[in-house]
Amino acid sequence: MVARERSGGMAVRCARRIGVAASVAANLAFLAMYIHRRYFGGGRSDGGGGSGKEITTVEPSKGKPPVTPDSVVNLDQGDPTLYDEFWRLMGGRATITIPGWQTMSYFSDLGGFCWFVEPGFERQVRRLHRLVGNAIVDGYHLLVGTGSTQLFQAALFALSPAEDGEPMSVVSPAPYYSSYPSVTNFLNSGLYRWDGDANTTFAGDTCIELVCSPNNPDGGIRKAVTKSKSGKTIHDFAYYWPQYTPITEAADHDIMLFTVSKCTGHAGTRLGWALVKDMEVAQKMTKFIELNTIGVSKDSQLRAAKILKVVCDGYELSPTSKVNLLFHFAQRKMAERWSRLRAVVATSGIFSLPDKLSSYCMFAKEVVSANPPFAWLRCHKDGVEDFESFLRERKIITRGGSKFGVDERVVRISMLDTDEAFNVFLGRIASLK
Amino acid sequence: MVARERSGGMAVRCARRIGVAASVAANLAFLAMYIHRRYFGGGRSDGGGGSGKEITTVEPSKGKPPVTPDSVVNLDQGDPTLYDEFWRLMGGRATITIPGWQTMSYFSDLGGFCWFVEPGFERQVRRLHRLVGNAIVDGYHLLVGTGSTQLFQAALFALSPAEDGEPMSVVSPAPYYSSYPSVTNFLNSGLYRWDGDANTTFAGDTCIELVCSPNNPDGGIRKAVTKSKSGKTIHDFAYYWPQYTPITEAADHDIMLFTVSKCTGHAGTRLGWALVKDMEVAQKMTKFIELNTIGVSKDSQLRAAKILKVVCDGYELSPTSKVNLLFHFAQRKMAERWSRLRAVVATSGIFSLPDKLSSYCMFAKEVVSANPPFAWLRCHKDGVEDFESFLRERKIITRGGSKFGVDERVVRISMLDTDEAFNVFLGRIASLK
Repeated sequence: MVARERSGGMAVRCARRIGVAASVAANLAFLAMYIHRRYFGGGRSDGGGGSGKEITTVEPSKGKPPVTPDSVVNLDQGDPTLYDEFWRLMGGRATITIPGWQTMSYFSDLGGFCWFVEPGFERQVRRLHRLVGNAIVDGYHLLVGTGSTQLFQAALFALSPAEDGEPMSVVSPAPYYSSYPSVTNFLNSGLYRWDGDANTTFAGDTCIELVCSPNNPDGGIRKAVTKSKSGKTIHDFAYYWPQYTPITEAADHDIMLFTVSKCTGHAGTRLGWALVKDMEVAQKMTKFIELNTIGVSKDSQLRAAKILKVVCDGYELSPTSKVNLLFHFAQRKMAERWSRLRAVVATSGIFSLPDKLSSYCMFAKEVVSANPPFAWLRCHKDGVEDFESFLRERKIITRGGSKFGVDERVVRISMLDTDEAFNVFLGRIASLK
Repeated sequence: MVARERSGGMAVRCARRIGVAASVAANLAFLAMYIHRRYFGGGRSDGGGGSGKEITTVEPSKGKPPVTPDSVVNLDQGDPTLYDEFWRLMGGRATITIPGWQTMSYFSDLGGFCWFVEPGFERQVRRLHRLVGNAIVDGYHLLVGTGSTQLFQAALFALSPAEDGEPMSVVSPAPYYSSYPSVTNFLNSGLYRWDGDANTTFAGDTCIELVCSPNNPDGGIRKAVTKSKSGKTIHDFAYYWPQYTPITEAADHDIMLFTVSKCTGHAGTRLGWALVKDMEVAQKMTKFIELNTIGVSKDSQLRAAKILKVVCDGYELSPTSKVNLLFHFAQRKMAERWSRLRAVVATSGIFSLPDKLSSYCMFAKEVVSANPPFAWLRCHKDGVEDFESFLRERKIITRGGSKFGVDERVVRISMLDTDEAFNVFLGRIASLK
């Protein structure tokens, strides 16, 4: 925390104001400090995109700079660049073309439940859940958001009581996703407030419990822990996909949040969706998004619809192909990375990881092991009290335990970055004894 | 208000909770009531888009249904479908193609001021302001938002004091944009709260004044009215473009908000930008967007970059063409509509409009008249106390004065809809005596 403040500037001062230091900006400040230069591209070929280049005359950004054996490795955010390889393999199949005169109106679907949901996007999302079997969609209202982060706030707004009074308590068992406290509290809302670890907080008669499963950061399978009869839950299912965890049931909770970012890897589209059982709650969530951003990018929705269509087509139209199967591709990559990481940790003598979980997966139709999106790595070496700082000195950027409500001898490490970043990270970890 | 509540359902109950009835949802509830059916397309040809159709297999939504002589005409929102014609004329020139493997990372520009701004988008925005001359860009930080609505909230967040205490007063002179109160108050933030008409409210020592110029709803040219030394301003310049008003100066205020929606007509991309003088304010605004939505759709940014490029190219690369000039196209359309509306109002005997404003426009290099995006129409007919309801009974949906902080004998009417909608509206107005 002290080291963080030294380098952070405004972003960090702002985070401190709301009492939570974990933030994308703060970590970017670190990265920028190491990079020391403006980065505009290079490192990636233009292959695989078909005719894209002639038409798209505005060059898109390239994300993070490539990792080299001597560079900083930033595994702080779960930037899902692991998926880049799959989508290049797909070539032009997931390419989308939008003429200048399309999607100009604010309105997507005036006759539907939510006026800003693109019908094509909704169809592909429902199709995907039926394919994977991870959530019930029949009888559910579908909402779209600018990432599931916006939908999380929409759900807090919808579940908080309409009457004036004390803010609703928002809780989650530690270790909890580091953004929950800051996103809940940054506007100092009178409707809801972060109340900490659901295991230790007395949240009064009512509260909103955030249930993240598989859990960010530690990959644990979670059920609601609060006992209050009138308590409400928000199920954050960003990682309930076959590449990360066995699909053990078609979930049917009141509010279930998903995101394109962690399903297909398209974080830059900023698109999430919610399946909501109760109509009034879904209407209030719609209202939040109306007031917050007057709907959600249609361009992103069209693009996501195309991408999800390609994923579903891969399974439904050419199931014997080994190339077109997104979840199989990602599961293989994740399993290989986890196997290598566990081997390094086992021989290190100073590190440990949560136990490996296995279950029968209804999607894979066999017993499979979980491959969580983050490694929750604990350090047992004497004298290392602040593991995040210890790793940062070795040019590995991670997110320390205190941001997740636990101690500082544990860190969260993204398993979703590029092969180059993962390999350099693994090499550095292997050299530590 | 009473009629509104009868039909509105949840959206309206929610609006009442925050004390403000004006909302997109409430008005959509009306429209839906009239439409009585799910609407999926029709009415538009596929011409002009070049090769779009083969590649884009997910059909985009079509916006509002076409207007017929007997149908409801919804001129409540400023849905900018007037621009559809221009972009069809442009054919494939503004088409964008995005391969499946592009823009996957969260990050757009790690070396730049704001990590989620696409460099190509920023370049075109700065180029556009230099072309039009409506705002100074040198020395300003550029931020992108999910519409200017998100940036408005980001600015409130950034300008409110960091210390605990009373919420900052937010004011604007009536008639003010109907969304300001609801967007300011919906989360019951402890940082800021809506305090009403800047002309009549004593806002204490400090306040944030919202300066919308040309003003939504009445088209007036506005300067800040509050006198407090420590007061802050947010300049909402959504309509400070040559088609709506003479460009009389290159504005250089502390925070200036713009939106693609009202500049080029692409409301569905949900993209706005802010020019911000002070670095700390810009950093706090960036922080807001990080916490609220972890950045802004890259797909929308790429698309907007392409569209703004085509606008600038039209003036800079082929200035003698009459076809490629967006602002000239829109100015002609708006001027024609205003001329017809003023003629109808002049002969009606029961309606009035704000006076016509003219000035020398630095962009057009001649004296031109303003053509505001909304008609602020007042009814002087005896017995009409609620003009919005009066028009609604005649199947014209508008937004009544009470939502803008004034009386109910005046309404706001969008001038930006399709020719069909405008013509039907004008015919109905002409028949009222």
